[in-house]
Amino acid sequence: MSSSTFGRLFSVTTFGESHGEAVGAIVDGAPPGHAISVEAIQYQLDRRRPGQSAVTTQRKESDTIHVLSGLFEGKTTGTPICLIAYNEDARSQDYEKLKQVYRPGHADMTYAAKYGIRDYRGSGRASGRETLGRVAAGAIARQILAPLGPDIVAGTVQVADVRADQRDWAEAEKNSVRCPDKSAAADMEKVILAAREDHDSVGGVVEIVARGVPAGWGDPTMEKLDAEIARAMLSIPAIKGVEIGDGFAGALLRGSQSNDAMGAGPGGFLTNHQGGILGGISTGQDIVVRIAVKPASSIAKAQQTVDVSGQPVEIKIEGRHDPCICPRVVPVAEAMMALVLVNAWLRQRALRGDVY
Amino acid sequence: MSSSTFGRLFSVTTFGESHGEAVGAIVDGAPPGHAISVEAIQYQLDRRRPGQSAVTTQRKESDTIHVLSGLFEGKTTGTPICLIAYNEDARSQDYEKLKQVYRPGHADMTYAAKYGIRDYRGSGRASGRETLGRVAAGAIARQILAPLGPDIVAGTVQVADVRADQRDWAEAEKNSVRCPDKSAAADMEKVILAAREDHDSVGGVVEIVARGVPAGWGDPTMEKLDAEIARAMLSIPAIKGVEIGDGFAGALLRGSQSNDAMGAGPGGFLTNHQGGILGGISTGQDIVVRIAVKPASSIAKAQQTVDVSGQPVEIKIEGRHDPCICPRVVPVAEAMMALVLVNAWLRQRALRGDVY
Amino acid sequence: MSSSTFGRLFSVTTFGESHGEAVGAIVDGAPPGHAISVEAIQYQLDRRRPGQSAVTTQRKESDTIHVLSGLFEGKTTGTPICLIAYNEDARSQDYEKLKQVYRPGHADMTYAAKYGIRDYRGSGRASGRETLGRVAAGAIARQILAPLGPDIVAGTVQVADVRADQRDWAEAEKNSVRCPDKSAAADMEKVILAAREDHDSVGGVVEIVARGVPAGWGDPTMEKLDAEIARAMLSIPAIKGVEIGDGFAGALLRGSQSNDAMGAGPGGFLTNHQGGILGGISTGQDIVVRIAVKPASSIAKAQQTVDVSGQPVEIKIEGRHDPCICPRVVPVAEAMMALVLVNAWLRQRALRGDVY
Amino acid sequence: MSSSTFGRLFSVTTFGESHGEAVGAIVDGAPPGHAISVEAIQYQLDRRRPGQSAVTTQRKESDTIHVLSGLFEGKTTGTPICLIAYNEDARSQDYEKLKQVYRPGHADMTYAAKYGIRDYRGSGRASGRETLGRVAAGAIARQILAPLGPDIVAGTVQVADVRADQRDWAEAEKNSVRCPDKSAAADMEKVILAAREDHDSVGGVVEIVARGVPAGWGDPTMEKLDAEIARAMLSIPAIKGVEIGDGFAGALLRGSQSNDAMGAGPGGFLTNHQGGILGGISTGQDIVVRIAVKPASSIAKAQQTVDVSGQPVEIKIEGRHDPCICPRVVPVAEAMMALVLVNAWLRQRALRGDVY
Repeated sequence: MSSSTFGRLFSVTTFGESHGEAVGAIVDGAPPGHAISVEAIQYQLDRRRPGQSAVTTQRKESDTIHVLSGLFEGKTTGTPICLIAYNEDARSQDYEKLKQVYRPGHADMTYAAKYGIRDYRGSGRASGRETLGRVAAGAIARQILAPLGPDIVAGTVQVADVRADQRDWAEAEKNSVRCPDKSAAADMEKVILAAREDHDSVGGVVEIVARGVPAGWGDPTMEKLDAEIARAMLSIPAIKGVEIGDGFAGALLRGSQSNDAMGAGPGGFLTNHQGGILGGISTGQDIVVRIAVKPASSIAKAQQTVDVSGQPVEIKIEGRHDPCICPRVVPVAEAMMALVLVNAWLRQRALRGDVY
Repeated sequence: MSSSTFGRLFSVTTFGESHGEAVGAIVDGAPPGHAISVEAIQYQLDRRRPGQSAVTTQRKESDTIHVLSGLFEGKTTGTPICLIAYNEDARSQDYEKLKQVYRPGHADMTYAAKYGIRDYRGSGRASGRETLGRVAAGAIARQILAPLGPDIVAGTVQVADVRADQRDWAEAEKNSVRCPDKSAAADMEKVILAAREDHDSVGGVVEIVARGVPAGWGDPTMEKLDAEIARAMLSIPAIKGVEIGDGFAGALLRGSQSNDAMGAGPGGFLTNHQGGILGGISTGQDIVVRIAVKPASSIAKAQQTVDVSGQPVEIKIEGRHDPCICPRVVPVAEAMMALVLVNAWLRQRALRGDVY
Repeated sequence: MSSSTFGRLFSVTTFGESHGEAVGAIVDGAPPGHAISVEAIQYQLDRRRPGQSAVTTQRKESDTIHVLSGLFEGKTTGTPICLIAYNEDARSQDYEKLKQVYRPGHADMTYAAKYGIRDYRGSGRASGRETLGRVAAGAIARQILAPLGPDIVAGTVQVADVRADQRDWAEAEKNSVRCPDKSAAADMEKVILAAREDHDSVGGVVEIVARGVPAGWGDPTMEKLDAEIARAMLSIPAIKGVEIGDGFAGALLRGSQSNDAMGAGPGGFLTNHQGGILGGISTGQDIVVRIAVKPASSIAKAQQTVDVSGQPVEIKIEGRHDPCICPRVVPVAEAMMALVLVNAWLRQRALRGDVY
Repeated sequence: MSSSTFGRLFSVTTFGESHGEAVGAIVDGAPPGHAISVEAIQYQLDRRRPGQSAVTTQRKESDTIHVLSGLFEGKTTGTPICLIAYNEDARSQDYEKLKQVYRPGHADMTYAAKYGIRDYRGSGRASGRETLGRVAAGAIARQILAPLGPDIVAGTVQVADVRADQRDWAEAEKNSVRCPDKSAAADMEKVILAAREDHDSVGGVVEIVARGVPAGWGDPTMEKLDAEIARAMLSIPAIKGVEIGDGFAGALLRGSQSNDAMGAGPGGFLTNHQGGILGGISTGQDIVVRIAVKPASSIAKAQQTVDVSGQPVEIKIEGRHDPCICPRVVPVAEAMMALVLVNAWLRQRALRGDVY
């Protein structure tokens, strides 16, 4: 089943295992004639790459992207774009000892239950490395969307109990945790390094904002724009929740507070409690999304688990891991948002080519 | 675009406007030979029906379901099942005055932006009435799933700032708010009626638990089980957030707490912080989901808005509305969970018919 | 599985059994704002209706179409359109005796093999009656396409060994076999009535021509325009072959004959051996398609077959049947062509809204 | 749009241009635990490879397949399988002169009309080279299907007016035209070489037979097994027609001849006029399909055409071309049949896992 595919018009299919030959994606359905910079793809991959800073894993991968098809003289041709990065620093022997054990918080047990066979090397397909293809595809989507208006920013807004008060998105790219609040960023970094010190990891929250999305994108029932965003976000490894606008906090409001009054504001709205989406369709305001990022599963601390035969064992996961994956989730979440939006745009253009 | 369809194997397409001739759904892909009770479908529709209690709208609809195809001698034949309920108490004249106005919190403005035309009578397709077809289809899915083990319960666990401490699911069906905590239920009812008194509405949180789901259901990347659940839940009107297991609260944990240790517990797990899903695949534990329900948009209180030409106007939405939609969201959320699960089961059976 | 759905953008899902409550279709994805005449839908259904002439079945059905949703003030709203016709003259008792027998040439045995259960009344879902929903949906597609240029005609060009020499499409609607050659039509009618006299049936060939389709519609690899047409045509009951342009006769040509030279002709082409499609994409010329229609399966003549337990029996199929289904295939094939084209148009508009 | 994808459960997406970096395919949805021989994939590619014999193009490509993901210890893991072959003998300079000209019979003009941009080197994506990924994916499908019974054979049964009388499938692999009739094969080869001598090409007919397919595969309405086969076959470059069983010749029969009587034959059928499919579902008999293959478009003979500005020009297509593509269509058609069947099997297993 094409369960590795996202998007029905601009369709992205990722492939590859963490310790296989390569990882990548096929983009099918990119509209023709759009100029694509391979450097801009590489830039996004570099933001996702391991080994960027003290708070990320030290695995060494250049993640150099190769575009094998679908571009001609620097432009999309409308045919499938094959994006590939060959794996370099795959130390599969690190994983040999994990072959017989189900790591807590990992998908080892569930892959075994589902498939009856699993590539245990570096989590195989369940590795965060699968997201490389998403980021590359998303970088193409972003380049196509940019001239139309949409612009996507994201950052870490919470790590453990440290919360960002500011939303200075330019700042977010300047610190190792990608926090849009400089002062909170410093505290977040401390919390992360303290967790690593304890051979442990921490969770957090990432916020994604899509600005400049015109009103009228998204579908109204089963494929609401927020439903597609939710699906996109929860398809990212380690994400356990998503909220739009006020989200869960909105439960505390009354309708008279939560309903965004209209008047002389941008696009007519005076507030944005609904996060830029009403009835599954964009309002023209900022689309505001937050996602819950669980603490990284791979920790060096001793944990109680079972082996493949069900016998209890203790495990310490050695190796090169992220003590907090929020900073690396940021470019992935942006990419997924871009994939949702480029599809919404194409769908709206199919429906109403007269006005798009 | 088939944006009114949910599910690729057990596919449900809803149709119908709030004040049109009828609402309903087509179920395509139900496996053949399963006994289906029409009474059991009606039972679920009655749980969703308006006018059940003091805390729901007083619109009068019998919501009698008609099965026009796909069943033969009480069993599924594998062909499309057409489920239909004719509208009865559609007072379209109530809406004539709203024709020129965008109601705050409603999809009026976004439908206009998207389609350039809208059926303004009773919110047309954006009405909660669209969910009738989902509940009917979900009732079929539940009957097919039941013999396999999965059983779905849900209830209102928060209204405004009143939270349920208990999870007594049998209790949930006994009170008007469908709260699994008898004492919290009474407080919730008070909060809702107070809001109605103020011509206002309140939001809340609904929790859905799927019990008895075998390990191994769901797909690992773009169509993770939790991603599909998230999409299903945010496709329900008025839902603004979803979380699985600890969800957003998990951001406060460390990996050593959040990782569910394995040992001699049911299915091997000692805790269930992950909400029964790892790597997008079911673990065999309870699948625990919570959704944020925004305050109902239709309130009689005066609100500031604009008309279709952008001129500011004040609006009071008279009519028959729900001051809190949580109780009526409960059966809809259960239905959507059932649709996710029946698809996951069929997909897993396609993949590994040898063990299913 | 949504195997009753045709089209990914303009999606049509049919439902209903021959002797159930109703037959019909849901159209999801119709672009908004298009005026739709219900009379024009009914006109197409009347062309498909039983009992039109001496050469069709005498079953009496008014086939009155009801549009339950998706139109507002005579226009599409972009939401699902539910089209339904209630069954009237369903004499299920005629079929009671066929319950235990597999009729030769029918899908009785294969439905049993596939589903393990079957609605044997009037062939259930395998009845030609299933095509009613297709014709109704196609009539909507045609009304949307018409202002864009495409116009679809079709007719019976062969019955048994009688072949049409002319392609006078206006004539096709004037004779009972829908043959675009008046003189051949008379011979075809004789051949059909002679077959009925013998309690037998005859096959034929139907030709469909889509005129006014712009160059550039269709996709180049897996979803070539001709591949979609082929799928559409072979999804019609009793169709056993399809060819585009010269089709099978083209095997006898050399490349220098078969390649359509370009010059000062319409759209640049001097001939149309390729039937208006090159590389899966429309050339702007007429799209010319022929389909092989097998002799109707239901014949009153004695036939050798087996019952559900595998015992040989002799069968004579009494009842009201078509001795040649070509005339009634014509509107169905036109409808399927319209569904292919409306999807191709929407897809092309998604891809290149700038020029469409 | 994912128009480069075939199959909804076992999904194959091809990528790559004739003169780009590589061609290949992603297979998503292969069921886990099936042993796959890479040599068996290579064997099928070698059957499709250019330069096999005097009657095929002399382009030199080793077409060595690389499997970059989805296999582990020789077995499918259920995750996407990336299949890739790097292009070697791409002489793009041959095509520089064709940049400004629309070759007759080719997709040059239609690609330009559709996309407004085209990779003119070696036909880009419209090249027969795109089928490499199909054959590789089909080779995996065949290995999965083989233990279940289905076995696919094919051969050239007509070239120009030379027709095969025999169906000796073992013989088909022994001659250069892949004809299952040794004596006809010699005549076919003469006809092809004569056409090449004249700087021209010839067309033909290929027959594909799937043996050992159980009764009950395929869906009954929009996705009939024959409709899926038709779509699959017409998605292959240069195919202009398809017929099942008697196909167009069946138009000449009466129902009493065309209806396959049942009795003591294999699976109960005494004849196979219907080609193994009734009502869109397999009968358990051989599935018999024939496809019309047009004369190869690339010929060295002078042809009249226009350039991109619409000016008439004469063209002679130099280079390395196939004078008859039937022999190379054979493995591609077999592969497409395998892709249809593996999907039908998985769908049937989803629907009725109890009996599969």
